[in-house]
Amino acid sequence: MNNDNIIAGEDTLDPQTLLKKQAGESAAEHVKDGMVVGLGTGSTVKWTILKLGQMIEDGIKIIGIPTSVRSEVLAREAGIPLSTLDAHPEIDLTIDGADEVDAHLNLIKGLGGALTREKIVAACSKKEIIVVDDSKLVDVLGTKAPVPVEILPFALEPCKISLAKLGSEPVLRMNENKKEVYKTDNDNYILDCRFDSITNPVELEQRINNTPGVVENGLFLNLIDLVMIASPDGVRTLPDQFS
Amino acid sequence: MNNDNIIAGEDTLDPQTLLKKQAGESAAEHVKDGMVVGLGTGSTVKWTILKLGQMIEDGIKIIGIPTSVRSEVLAREAGIPLSTLDAHPEIDLTIDGADEVDAHLNLIKGLGGALTREKIVAACSKKEIIVVDDSKLVDVLGTKAPVPVEILPFALEPCKISLAKLGSEPVLRMNENKKEVYKTDNDNYILDCRFDSITNPVELEQRINNTPGVVENGLFLNLIDLVMIASPDGVRTLPDQFS
Repeated sequence: MNNDNIIAGEDTLDPQTLLKKQAGESAAEHVKDGMVVGLGTGSTVKWTILKLGQMIEDGIKIIGIPTSVRSEVLAREAGIPLSTLDAHPEIDLTIDGADEVDAHLNLIKGLGGALTREKIVAACSKKEIIVVDDSKLVDVLGTKAPVPVEILPFALEPCKISLAKLGSEPVLRMNENKKEVYKTDNDNYILDCRFDSITNPVELEQRINNTPGVVENGLFLNLIDLVMIASPDGVRTLPDQFS
Repeated sequence: MNNDNIIAGEDTLDPQTLLKKQAGESAAEHVKDGMVVGLGTGSTVKWTILKLGQMIEDGIKIIGIPTSVRSEVLAREAGIPLSTLDAHPEIDLTIDGADEVDAHLNLIKGLGGALTREKIVAACSKKEIIVVDDSKLVDVLGTKAPVPVEILPFALEPCKISLAKLGSEPVLRMNENKKEVYKTDNDNYILDCRFDSITNPVELEQRINNTPGVVENGLFLNLIDLVMIASPDGVRTLPDQFS
């Protein structure tokens, strides 16, 4: 998290960050008093969480369910009361980010590493809103982003072999220092699997899920109700109408 | 592990244990010099591991890949040289147990808690032999045993709800003292899911695997080459012929 951005005025933000801020804050307007709210992870939904903190200061009452240790820390700092899926397995609304979005509201998520908890929370949510800047829109999933696949460390080599057989080039994710293997909040590894293009995401997801050792994958299919897209022309939505 | 059984003569074993010993030791005869061998977990395959220890003393050279911390400890005590899936992602032969076996060589596994690693190892194995006593044979999977489902602790309540919707009664597995939640070797929980009877195991497995928060399930479908069944009449196999 870049604290400079939070305390800076909008005029000091770079254009890309400004778009993320606009999308993230717009989504917060869908949160109503009394809701249980799933809190996504990433550089766009960060702005949603900060906005929700302001709304709580202004008197709204909500309960947040974080999707990562990172969003938990941020939400706590922002003053959002937090709970767990054990206490609230049904979530009114979740707001999260994405790495790729297609016209069918299907996504690739997980470059931030929190795909598994994000997907669990999405599956528990009555409504799920995705906030992105317009660089994330694609015609076909897999165009820009690899599909992150969370795997058990025990199954590293077998999963590499199996996921390569599905047509990808799996790369073990490392920490930013490139010296240690990246570990998820669930203490697992991530294989970033680049596919040429994903013409049948439902079938691909099924095959990935059936691979022993795979915990979860970053394909989010038929889970999303609304995508809010920030561009220099303003924030538009997919689909156009949303109730 | 009951050490009394290991050092006792056959005449002191109860009839059920004697059947397990016969099945477990018969399976060891399929192990040849130079093989990489997957070592299953449980009260029947325990006898396979002990037999392999004797065969190593007699001069055979093999490398074992254990499917659990328990089988790792037992194999080490038996003198079997061990390695990992990272070093040997292709296994020549795995010998494992099961909780239920149907006529199509499909299984329910995991009452011993090691289902996930067992399934990873099975998927890496050129041949997989299952050893059971005849009490494990069923016409339809689910007749006697629940399907164990390994889940992330984060997703306990959502998984309970989702697996109940699939028609089961999920019960969180506890330790033998019934005071603490049972944890797998991967530090996850197990929900034991009793289904009335499982008429379409392929579809059920698919649905369980598509549930966010599920790590693995105890249905082993189309993974097995041979089942060795011990009964008071001797050891028979499914299918009858095996090469």
